[in-house]
Amino acid sequence: MRKSIATVSVSGTLTEKLEAIAAAGFDGVEIFENDLLACPLSPEEVRARAADLGLGIDLYQPFRDFEAVPPEVLAGNLRRAERKFQVMERLGADLLLVCSNVSPAAIGDDELAAEQLRLLAERAAEHGVRIAYEALAWGRHVNAYLHAWRIVRMADHPNLGTCLDSFHILSRGSDPIGIEAIPGEKIFFLQLADAPLLAMDVLQWSRHYRCFPGQGNFDLAGLTASVLRAGYAGPLSLEVFNDVFRQASAERTALDGMRSLIALEQNLDGVTHPAVPAGFAFAELADPDPGGGTLGGLLSALGFVRTGVHASKPVELWSQGEARLLLNAGADAGEPALVAIGLDSPDPGGAVKHAGSLLSPVLPRERAPEDVPLDAVAAPDGTEIFFCDTAWLADFAPAAPARLADLTPGTPVAGPITGPITGIDHVALTQPLHYFDEAALFYRSVLGLRPQESLELPDPYGLLRSKAMSAPDGAVRMVVNIAQVGAGHLPWQHIALACDDVVAVARRLRAEQPGLLLPIPGNYYDDLEARYEVDPELRRLGVLYDRDGDGGEFLHLYTVTVGRVFFELVQRVGGYQGYGAGNAPIRLAVQHAGA
Amino acid sequence: MRKSIATVSVSGTLTEKLEAIAAAGFDGVEIFENDLLACPLSPEEVRARAADLGLGIDLYQPFRDFEAVPPEVLAGNLRRAERKFQVMERLGADLLLVCSNVSPAAIGDDELAAEQLRLLAERAAEHGVRIAYEALAWGRHVNAYLHAWRIVRMADHPNLGTCLDSFHILSRGSDPIGIEAIPGEKIFFLQLADAPLLAMDVLQWSRHYRCFPGQGNFDLAGLTASVLRAGYAGPLSLEVFNDVFRQASAERTALDGMRSLIALEQNLDGVTHPAVPAGFAFAELADPDPGGGTLGGLLSALGFVRTGVHASKPVELWSQGEARLLLNAGADAGEPALVAIGLDSPDPGGAVKHAGSLLSPVLPRERAPEDVPLDAVAAPDGTEIFFCDTAWLADFAPAAPARLADLTPGTPVAGPITGPITGIDHVALTQPLHYFDEAALFYRSVLGLRPQESLELPDPYGLLRSKAMSAPDGAVRMVVNIAQVGAGHLPWQHIALACDDVVAVARRLRAEQPGLLLPIPGNYYDDLEARYEVDPELRRLGVLYDRDGDGGEFLHLYTVTVGRVFFELVQRVGGYQGYGAGNAPIRLAVQHAGA
Repeated sequence: MRKSIATVSVSGTLTEKLEAIAAAGFDGVEIFENDLLACPLSPEEVRARAADLGLGIDLYQPFRDFEAVPPEVLAGNLRRAERKFQVMERLGADLLLVCSNVSPAAIGDDELAAEQLRLLAERAAEHGVRIAYEALAWGRHVNAYLHAWRIVRMADHPNLGTCLDSFHILSRGSDPIGIEAIPGEKIFFLQLADAPLLAMDVLQWSRHYRCFPGQGNFDLAGLTASVLRAGYAGPLSLEVFNDVFRQASAERTALDGMRSLIALEQNLDGVTHPAVPAGFAFAELADPDPGGGTLGGLLSALGFVRTGVHASKPVELWSQGEARLLLNAGADAGEPALVAIGLDSPDPGGAVKHAGSLLSPVLPRERAPEDVPLDAVAAPDGTEIFFCDTAWLADFAPAAPARLADLTPGTPVAGPITGPITGIDHVALTQPLHYFDEAALFYRSVLGLRPQESLELPDPYGLLRSKAMSAPDGAVRMVVNIAQVGAGHLPWQHIALACDDVVAVARRLRAEQPGLLLPIPGNYYDDLEARYEVDPELRRLGVLYDRDGDGGEFLHLYTVTVGRVFFELVQRVGGYQGYGAGNAPIRLAVQHAGA
Repeated sequence: MRKSIATVSVSGTLTEKLEAIAAAGFDGVEIFENDLLACPLSPEEVRARAADLGLGIDLYQPFRDFEAVPPEVLAGNLRRAERKFQVMERLGADLLLVCSNVSPAAIGDDELAAEQLRLLAERAAEHGVRIAYEALAWGRHVNAYLHAWRIVRMADHPNLGTCLDSFHILSRGSDPIGIEAIPGEKIFFLQLADAPLLAMDVLQWSRHYRCFPGQGNFDLAGLTASVLRAGYAGPLSLEVFNDVFRQASAERTALDGMRSLIALEQNLDGVTHPAVPAGFAFAELADPDPGGGTLGGLLSALGFVRTGVHASKPVELWSQGEARLLLNAGADAGEPALVAIGLDSPDPGGAVKHAGSLLSPVLPRERAPEDVPLDAVAAPDGTEIFFCDTAWLADFAPAAPARLADLTPGTPVAGPITGPITGIDHVALTQPLHYFDEAALFYRSVLGLRPQESLELPDPYGLLRSKAMSAPDGAVRMVVNIAQVGAGHLPWQHIALACDDVVAVARRLRAEQPGLLLPIPGNYYDDLEARYEVDPELRRLGVLYDRDGDGGEFLHLYTVTVGRVFFELVQRVGGYQGYGAGNAPIRLAVQHAGA
């Protein structure tokens, strides 16, 4: 389908917007009037620039407060419209968006509205212009899409149709299935925007929090399916007002918008997701201090054993249960940091092809000739995501053990290494502020993860906003965070390791290497013990605890931070699905105090 | 009155918070439970630290979801309370805030609520603790302050009283005059928070947008007066949840909170404002390129004449009508920038004393011995604010004219210089993000300006948030902005000059020095002419236009930007009180394109 986007959705001058939109591969644009008013180019020059870039001008918008007005106001409104038709002729735009009247002067009379819109359509026809009438969610009398359609049908003019906007429909809780009552040829335009569910004034919600399809909580695929079933054949057009996008790179935002439309189309086409990962193959850490240094020491203490060395690169494999960590001495990070995630993929080739179809940057296969080929894409924060089958392990020759206490010295170790840690439970990445919505869409569309809880957590120096996502079966869980904190406070990443018995691990660490555990304040346990009857040993060991409404329990502990990264050990009991978010502020405060 | 603040109101660890709060001069604190839970100090250590800092612990808060529950829940709640009483004993806190129950399990039965709160008060009494019961605005059954008081009276226990919170009262639109029905000794605590008027879910509004008294739109003085009339003798305590304060400096936030309480007290005491300025005495610009360079050239073109030279500093006085601009070659700004504002003050000494009483940094009088003394304070963004009578002009000897075209060469000029510009209409300053609320309070409390409109304006690379303030008679108008824009886009300051005939000035500049005028896109005029019947000359000259609902008109133009600063010429017709905000996005787009 033809793909468009309103110029208001990306940042910059009109020229910059058009260039970014064209570069992202859109077919057309909606020219948002304020963007034109502030532009030094004449409408003819804008038209030529768009044409040079291969962009059609699919809509000019918005025209406000026109219909259902007293006769003395109508004359001025028609005069205003005539001027806009002239601009549109110069611009080469033949479709004008008319929003339902929000003025206190508007009259609640559908027949009057229809009569005046018919008059407007007649005038428009003289200029070769068509009118798309849209119900704003906060329209004074007309705020429901079926009401706008009723008026359009009443007016009965070939140059008058309706414009549907997913935000205006879904934010009011209207059921989009009624769209199928509208003949497709009378749906002149379709604007798409998603949004997070927020309890606030709908006008403010619309102006500041719209996002691209798949980034919020609305069912855009369901709505679009109804629009297509009605017979609509026009463009899918994004119209987003978003405070963050306003400040971000126009190129990147436009590309992300295009990704959202491609994902929506795939969803509509029933494209099954080839890439839903079946588990974590590995997590890769930059380790500037290799050979059992700080990171290796920490892993040893957690019961990991070095089980392999890469055939051609300075990378070690450390294992325990199904948890595999790569320590890469060649990664260019300067300090220990999470640089890559390997996902068990049922179809690595298909997965990377799917990622590529969604405009994710596919990474070059930089490796030695004899290495197993690995397919990878870059996540929005730069983390490399590898799609793996088990072949990747062939690159790692069994290594001399790094932890002599557990193994006979000198014996190469291939695994399996059994211990209390059974695998990787989840990985938490901190995103740059401007890419939070992009990250949500990436993990949802490229990896096929489903959104779970979204939270705001207090940090001593600000707020942490957090979104959790998981594979349908829970085999892969990812948490993306943004840290809205004061200057000078760095965000951390972490790997949460699934564990059979967190208390046992804590007991051993407390005895052997207590300095590796993040100290948890006694006041936390005073509160915990006020709320629940918990084993007093949790306090002695520094193990944190959470309980869900169904009696599921979560025991977890944190290591100290090494570079940008720390580890969490988590034990899920009785179907607990969360992440112990209530304890995160305690962790953040202790981490800041020690940073 | 005793002054307190909740630890949640400022950023940092609990220790950092206490230090900042003590440094700002508070008498006590409310310990916010989460701050204690995350603190490595024991309650006894926190108590000692507070005592060392001279801070009393006036309240421990909050205790949630206690009252009006089924019997099986009550037992657990009492157990939880017992643990908290123990913590409070260790902490040396004797007052516990209990918020009205928000749980779905709560029962809408006032007698049950009263009975259980009475039981809680009895238990509390055994620990020397008192209970302050507060109606949360989103409480499940109890969400109005008079309802909470009704339950407290019904429970009738000396250790049970009510806590009043201005946000919970005013956000619901409750009339605070009913507070006078509560005996003062049963008001155990008073929490104060202001807020901007926002149409959103009250819980989110409370958690993210509270601010200090005088920074928002609530009538805190009226509410506090009712509380005092009721006989309350406890502390005035600030409790603010604010996303910006969370990220800002604790020291600065605490000081600003103290300023808000002092201003509130002055307001209650009927302290009349000694410093409301009668006009702008001058605006001072850093001019690294003196002697009729870029800034001087621009001023000459606008009809200003150099009328004085400072006796001991490299500062020139440029005048036209009542507009006086100082060009300071010695200011340390690196580029042309607005560095100081002089205000005509009926009582400069009183004004600076008043500013000092509100904790504004009074600036040292750095000047040569023979100079006229000048009183000045620093505004939150660092701009110097001088309080002047006319004596300051004595420092400036008449200068040789800088604009020969208008005056006889070689003749020293003392003024008055008449021209189309009659004075300074307003000054617009861009604030650092974290000091926007502080700036609003500063201009309101220190200068006695009244808040006018608050706006959000689209910028090509973000949003501009803007607050206008003015003296009651309009003689002094200030606009403070914050620019929430992407990296690399600098904010600008500007001086708006009142003008009798903007069109005449534009005509002359267009003919003589068109490069000094900010070019306004033709598309702007296409739209303007669609909306209003305006003189086509506005388009030729680049004069912008606005009209208010009462037929007041505003004609204005902008100069190009020099360094960080530009000039606006404004002509107000028919009582227009605004700032042409609708045209600002056009200006911003053109400025960015030329930057």
